[in-house]
Parts: sequence; structure tokens; C-alpha cells
Amino acid sequence: MGTDDMAKARQDGAGSEAARRRLQMADIARLAGVSTATVSRALNNSPLVNAETRGRILELAASLKYSINIGAQNLRLKQNRTIGVLIPYDRKTHLRLTDPFLLAMLGSVADALTEQGFDMLFSRLPTDRLGEAAATPFDTGRVGGIILVGQWGRHHELNELAARKVPMVVWGAHLPQQLYCCVGSDNVGGGMLATEHLIAQGRRRIAFFGDIDLPEPAQRYRGYCAALARHGIAVDPALQVSSPFLPSGGREAVETMQARGVDYDAVFACSDLLAMTAIDSLRAHGRRVPEDVAVVGYDDIEQSAYFHPRLTTVRQPIGAAGSALVASLLALIDGKPAPAVELPTELVVRASAGEAQGS
Amino acid sequence: MGTDDMAKARQDGAGSEAARRRLQMADIARLAGVSTATVSRALNNSPLVNAETRGRILELAASLKYSINIGAQNLRLKQNRTIGVLIPYDRKTHLRLTDPFLLAMLGSVADALTEQGFDMLFSRLPTDRLGEAAATPFDTGRVGGIILVGQWGRHHELNELAARKVPMVVWGAHLPQQLYCCVGSDNVGGGMLATEHLIAQGRRRIAFFGDIDLPEPAQRYRGYCAALARHGIAVDPALQVSSPFLPSGGREAVETMQARGVDYDAVFACSDLLAMTAIDSLRAHGRRVPEDVAVVGYDDIEQSAYFHPRLTTVRQPIGAAGSALVASLLALIDGKPAPAVELPTELVVRASAGEAQGS
Repeated sequence: MGTDDMAKARQDGAGSEAARRRLQMADIARLAGVSTATVSRALNNSPLVNAETRGRILELAASLKYSINIGAQNLRLKQNRTIGVLIPYDRKTHLRLTDPFLLAMLGSVADALTEQGFDMLFSRLPTDRLGEAAATPFDTGRVGGIILVGQWGRHHELNELAARKVPMVVWGAHLPQQLYCCVGSDNVGGGMLATEHLIAQGRRRIAFFGDIDLPEPAQRYRGYCAALARHGIAVDPALQVSSPFLPSGGREAVETMQARGVDYDAVFACSDLLAMTAIDSLRAHGRRVPEDVAVVGYDDIEQSAYFHPRLTTVRQPIGAAGSALVASLLALIDGKPAPAVELPTELVVRASAGEAQGS
Repeated sequence: MGTDDMAKARQDGAGSEAARRRLQMADIARLAGVSTATVSRALNNSPLVNAETRGRILELAASLKYSINIGAQNLRLKQNRTIGVLIPYDRKTHLRLTDPFLLAMLGSVADALTEQGFDMLFSRLPTDRLGEAAATPFDTGRVGGIILVGQWGRHHELNELAARKVPMVVWGAHLPQQLYCCVGSDNVGGGMLATEHLIAQGRRRIAFFGDIDLPEPAQRYRGYCAALARHGIAVDPALQVSSPFLPSGGREAVETMQARGVDYDAVFACSDLLAMTAIDSLRAHGRRVPEDVAVVGYDDIEQSAYFHPRLTTVRQPIGAAGSALVASLLALIDGKPAPAVELPTELVVRASAGEAQGS
């Protein structure tokens, strides 16, 4: 499927507006015990309907906006001022919501919604129920659209939701055959920036900490491999550790490297959480950062700026991410095209990988 | 008002159930264009109402649960599976939701609600609209109850909400004349623990960083003063800095102390964020932590464990806090007494204030 087809598939959502409107009128008519024609007249303020009947039909129409999906018409009028926000969790590892990047994203989305005058209906779902349950708040008319933070390898299920016109924007990696609207950052570019910087510092044995079975770390790994290749450095699989995004991740990765007995002089970690916990663990092993091991993180969460050593990291624009997710979703709800957004990543040079040098 | 009266005032919430039920029946009758008696018969499955009319009345009753406050009856049945969670912001300072303690609390409440099968309707409000707008999601029937994280000196407005039976639990300080159900931690005790520990390390010039115009920091300051008094150390107002809970807070407090030219050998900071940013700033001034300045934080956010130096801090049980807030709110919704909960605080000794010694 080409990108034109995908854009078209997303725009088609507004097409069934007339059908939805008819459905809504039939509901109101049934509940009020009057004909659909009477409902239509009442909604159009016709003098053929008496004041009492018109009053209760209008009130019913207003009341039902909360419990019946009244589709594109009212969504366009932005009468449903609530957006569903979903951060899935992996049953195996991510039960508690403590990841500082996810929390920062949640704060950013909440701020962007507040700015636009929307409330946020937040829920968590296990990743293995994503396809089945992610759209429930929309299907039941409780929210006007859905923001999903994280793909979790559920690409095909998310495509299915998009195919049945659920207004949804997903934070994550841009992938081929992507029907759903995706907002993310340039992961391949970010991986290259981090690795190029470490190579420029004279490092050649650069460990990679991140779970390459997930879309975003996989793309960062591609950037890492590309940068190594550009400098004629062979990719050594012994330098890659599939760390989960958990507080224990950095420590476990350092222990894994220790157990492997593999020499390394740098770490590119797929999140600042992994970088910080790795630095703490390296310090416990008596290895100095950046002198013995240079470390670059990913995300640029606020804490990176006052961590010690201050963290060199690949910045994802977290504040802009919330605004972009909300802007794309509101466009989608409005029936406008909402193309994929790729936010730029940039290297923030602080102290954990040594000072900046020309490459 | 004694504690018995307060408990009674909170329990009275269930009293008006019959009145609310009558109100709901009147609404349905009006919207269906039938009499209240007919609605009553239909809801009781009476054969006096024909099948068509009974059908639409039952459907209407089910639909309206989303848009009309149907009160204690359905709440007791927990049909409304959504709880409103509110983190206010101070227009002057706290616009963005980036505070790691608040984000951790949000994660904890979200986790506790998920565990109980509830969704979370999250919104932010400026503190100066708290009294006016905090109850809106409940008043409009969108949520079954409200969790408010932070008092912001709006004690009297929160009492007014409690007086008009809004099921609401507030995270914050326990105060006299508290009608609303409050869940918080032992702030006075926490302040004493931190200060006693610093005194036990031989420190006598202990700076206090925190905004004592807010209820929780004010109580921590009382604990700080009590510990100093116990050891015959005079309270020096020049050692107190009213730092807001912002990433710039610690740095600004260190600069303020610098500008005052006041000597100090320790800092008790009212949050880990303040402690960490103060440590970063002390380091920039060439002052070693803990050798030159011993630092104790407050909260025990996850990052404290891998910050450098690892942070000695007063632990608020963040995970337990979410569960306690949700448990108290569900009790309140059930019409059961929900007495104030004071969670214990404990000192977590790591490295930022030196090693533990006998006092």
C-alpha cells in the first residue's frame, strides 16, 4: 500500500457522517417516542413541533452526546472535550508506571490537552489486549479520539484500528505499511548522532543497551550500525544488550557485559533511565565516567541536566511531542489529513561522554 | 468541629440517595414524555406499562447514566468506573507538569485505579479556580469521585466541596478543621527525621529549602524547628529559603544563600528535585557533597537511588499513596467512613549526607 492510499484511508473517516447522523436521529426518536421526522423538525427549530416536545428532544440530544457515538458531526464541533490517552504495559516487565520518559510524555500530553481545553481520559492496558480494547473509550462515545503512547510491536492491530476509522494517533516509530497516524522522532538519526559523537571522542568499543525487538530501539540500533560502518568499525553482537526500559536495566546491562568479559570504552543507552542506572553501576565497579567509559543517553528528560556527570544525550522534544500528538489528533477528528510527523532529534553535549571535539 | 462530627459530615453523603433517585426518575419521565409513575412502574417491570414504553424507558435510564448524576445508588453499584484525578497548577510558577514527584504520584494513582478496574479522567486547573471547578466532572456525572493531588492553600474551598458531599480525597497535609478526606504522610515527623540525621552527622548550620507558605513544607519546617530545639540549636531565619518546587528551585536557593553570605554545612530540601538541583549547583560552586555540605531530600523518588551521590532522603511511600487515595475514595463512594490517612515517613540513608552514625 502506497503513502497516497494510506493518507486516503485516513481521510475517509469523515465520509459516513450522514449515516451516523441518521442513526443518531433514529435513537432520539425511539427514546422520545416520536417519529424521526419530528426529531429532524425539532432539531431544525420547525414551528410544526410544539415547544414541550422540541424542548425534550433538544435536551435528549444534548444528554446523549455522552453515551452514543454521534460521529463526525459533533466531533467536528468539538463537543466531546475528552481525549483518551493510553500507555500500555507489558505484563512481563512494565507493570508500574514509573518510567521517567513515559511520565514526562504523559505530563506533556496532559499539558497540551489542557492548553486546548480538553480533558484526558487515561487508562492502561496490557500490550496483549491493545488491539481488542484500545478503541473501547471511543467506541462507547466517551472520548472523541485516542492518543496511544507506545506501539509495543502491535503494528498490525493498530493498523486494524485505523482501518475501521478510529481517530487515533500513536507515539512511536515510523514503519512501512503504517495506516495509523504516527508521531515520533527520528530514531535512526538519533542513533547515528549518539554513535558519531562517541566515535569522535576516540571510542571504538561502543556498547549498545536497548531492546532491539521493539521498533524504536531497533531503529536506533540501525543508526548505531550505520555510524560504525561509516567509520569502518565492525558491528560486534557481543556489545549489544537487550535491556528493558526499567530502573534495573542499566545495572543489569553492566553486569551482563561484566559476565561476558567483553571490553568496552563507551555506552550508547536507549534511554536516559538506562544511561543513568548504567553510570551508577559503572561507578560501583570503579569505572570512571567519562574517562573509562563514555556514556550517551536518549530522551533528554529533565533530570539529565542535573545528573552527575551531566548527561550527554539525544534529545527527543518531549514538550513538542505532546503538542504534535494533540494537533494531529484534532486534525484527524476534524476530518483533515493527519500525515505522519517525524520530530527532529538532536545531540545535547554535556559531560558524560567527554567534551565535544571535531569529528 | 471534632473528629466525630467530621466523620459524620462525610458519611451523610449517602443520605440523599432517595432524593436523587426521585430526581432521576423525573428526568427520565420528562425526556420520555411520560409520567414519573410510569417510569417507576417501568423500572419495576410492572405489567401496567407496555413493552415498547418499558423498553425505551430502560434504555433511556441506561443511556443517561453518563450524562445525569444518578447519585449514590449507581455509585454504590460502581457503575461509573471513572475517577477524576486533578493536579492543580499555580499560574505563577507551575505551568508545565514536569515535577518528578507529582508525575510519580500520577503514575501511582493510575496504577491503583487500573488495579481496581477504574479509568482516570485527568485534568489540570489553575489553583485559583480549584473551589469553583474541581467538582465539575462529578457534578456533570462524568466521574464517580475525585482525587485531588495537592491542597495549594485552598483549604477552605476544599472544605466547601466536602460540605456539599462531593466524594473527594485530597493528597496533602492534615490540618485542623478538615472536612474533606485527606491522605498524606507524616510531614512533621519527616522534617524531624531529616534534621535529626543531619545533627547526628555533626551539622549545626542546616539550611531549609522549601516554601513554608504551603501546608506540607510548613509542617516539615515545624519538624525541622522541633529537632533543632531539642538539641538547643537556635532557628536562624537566614537559613530558610522559600524555594518553589521547580527544577530551578535548588540552584536559586544555593544562589540566594550565596548572596546572603550566610555560612551553612547542610541542606534539608523539601523535595528530591530541590535536593538534586541544589547538589548540582553546590558542585558548580566547588562545594563537595557531603563533605562540605550534607544534603537530605524529601520524597524518595526512584531517581534518588541512582543519583550521585546517592540521595539520603525522607521517604514518602508513593506506591502506597496511590492505593490509599483510591481505597479512601472508593470507601467514600460506598457511603462508608473514610477517615484521614497519615502514611508513615522514614529516613532512607544513602550517601548525600554522609554515613549513618549513632545520634
